[in-house]
Amino acid sequence: MKLIVDAFGGDNAPLEIIKGCELAVKEYGYEIALVGDEKKIRDCANDNNISLQNMKIVHAPDTISMEEHPDCILKEKKDSSMAKGMLLLASGEGDAFVTAGSTGAAVIGSTFLIKRIKGVKRAALAAIWPNDAGGSFMVLDVGANVECRPEVLGQFGLMGSEYMKSFLNIENPRVALLNVGTEDTKGGDLQKAAFAVLKDLPINFIGNVEARDLLFGAADVVVCDGFSGNILLKSTEGVAQFMMKNLKQALYKNLKTKLAALVLKSSLKEFKSKLDYTEIGGAPLMGISKPVIKAHGNSKAKAFKNALVQAAAYAEGGSISKIADAVKKEKNTDNE
Amino acid sequence: MKLIVDAFGGDNAPLEIIKGCELAVKEYGYEIALVGDEKKIRDCANDNNISLQNMKIVHAPDTISMEEHPDCILKEKKDSSMAKGMLLLASGEGDAFVTAGSTGAAVIGSTFLIKRIKGVKRAALAAIWPNDAGGSFMVLDVGANVECRPEVLGQFGLMGSEYMKSFLNIENPRVALLNVGTEDTKGGDLQKAAFAVLKDLPINFIGNVEARDLLFGAADVVVCDGFSGNILLKSTEGVAQFMMKNLKQALYKNLKTKLAALVLKSSLKEFKSKLDYTEIGGAPLMGISKPVIKAHGNSKAKAFKNALVQAAAYAEGGSISKIADAVKKEKNTDNE
Repeated sequence: MKLIVDAFGGDNAPLEIIKGCELAVKEYGYEIALVGDEKKIRDCANDNNISLQNMKIVHAPDTISMEEHPDCILKEKKDSSMAKGMLLLASGEGDAFVTAGSTGAAVIGSTFLIKRIKGVKRAALAAIWPNDAGGSFMVLDVGANVECRPEVLGQFGLMGSEYMKSFLNIENPRVALLNVGTEDTKGGDLQKAAFAVLKDLPINFIGNVEARDLLFGAADVVVCDGFSGNILLKSTEGVAQFMMKNLKQALYKNLKTKLAALVLKSSLKEFKSKLDYTEIGGAPLMGISKPVIKAHGNSKAKAFKNALVQAAAYAEGGSISKIADAVKKEKNTDNE
Repeated sequence: MKLIVDAFGGDNAPLEIIKGCELAVKEYGYEIALVGDEKKIRDCANDNNISLQNMKIVHAPDTISMEEHPDCILKEKKDSSMAKGMLLLASGEGDAFVTAGSTGAAVIGSTFLIKRIKGVKRAALAAIWPNDAGGSFMVLDVGANVECRPEVLGQFGLMGSEYMKSFLNIENPRVALLNVGTEDTKGGDLQKAAFAVLKDLPINFIGNVEARDLLFGAADVVVCDGFSGNILLKSTEGVAQFMMKNLKQALYKNLKTKLAALVLKSSLKEFKSKLDYTEIGGAPLMGISKPVIKAHGNSKAKAFKNALVQAAAYAEGGSISKIADAVKKEKNTDNE
């Protein structure tokens, strides 16, 4: 497995990125192409005693900051680590690309430098979360397209279904539409039209789903526009952070509670891991013709390692060719 | 303070509603008009040893179920407890109305039976949550209007600002627009246009805010369309429920953890109350010309009591006349 890595994406680059790669090489033996400023990568590895075994460096002098306009990846930042990494993937010099950098640049770069799967109207950023039933579910789109047409939401359902088949070996993933109620007629014009589109697709569409039921296993694939999906993603993050912070305060209140917390340590660790995005890895960019994973911007080494593991699974799973087939078949059915 | 109560709204009506009223009468001495089937209310009170002191019963033979179309409140369910209660409020026979029944019916009933404040384009359901800074913030709309025009979002900002001034005595509430990023140019057409409207209003508009920052005190009033707001509301509920359930499992895993949990009891209780909607009460229906509070559908007695307390504060705070003034002034400024 050859993975291409944006060594200068995210809040903790390059140190945590390189450390994450080291962990992944040790555990899984991947070959990694680290893309970024060669001198800085070598210095960082030397200063922190990180082995670059199994890794080659592909020099890219520039970086894209979170503040820059996403379009810059096609223009003034053509020599950035993200752009160069994507071009490497496009030219077949690796099996998947992973970046913790700007989401907007990742979407635009993937769309224009790697290209979409033929027939796919829009790429979607897909979050994967664990649920209460011990499984996982995918939400797409969580931020690539703030506005979507109904047919685009239909394709998201098709793509998510294919991905979850490969990723979790679910035979017939339950696809649902994120809505304000479970009744068929709920939502605005977009949801009503998308409901009609999804109902006619060759997927296991189970209707509307409410945000409060997702973590309890209500669906395997949740379809929504990128605006609502982003609100869902970030509120989930926010509430989890808020609760963990307050729980910590409750546990470390005084000596008595600290001792009790010590007894609960392993049990609480298990609890914490249930809503820890670092366990999941990153978000696949669905609809792109080669595997691209967007890791969380503040990924530390362990989270980035998990994003690499997910990238490898994405590449091995073969869902992209299955998505391409499904989209092609659907297009033919539509007689477009 | 005279409060009018829908005794047959919500999953736990009438028992928990009547119990909540009893608690509120004992603690605050409110006068309460219980609206609903008189015989059922008396039987329920007798069977459960609930005192109806300070309460009068206003008979209404019908109820609205959660499955019925919201419009029914104006048509076949004119004699429901919710419709009758609203008409009582409209005719001045009480200071505020509280229901745990169907949100849709509450919005339509309030709009047509009680009427909006003059100049208000749309009523909004407003959730109030505690934040990490020890204060509270309001999100509106959380579900009354799945689709909104930019000027409607502007009015939500104006109304929320006036409410929070009265409710929390904040001199100049920070009003923000819910968005996918904090930069001024973020979002879709609706958010961009709403940003421009909010910027020109006589409120303390602080720009865009992300869902993950809300519980950490990023704004006092958060403006959004009812679709996104509903996703935000329900995902917050869902994550909190998920974490509480898993925390419980971690604490009750075995004898050792159970003993430790016992030590942590009071500290964890405080933690739990921080994301407990029962502590907050209900959601005010903003833009209606008299105080209406929508309590959570599964409110138990304590939650319903808190909704009554909030209704009393809403009526006493005088925010409705201040909202009316602000809307009128704004309309004149616009030369509409």
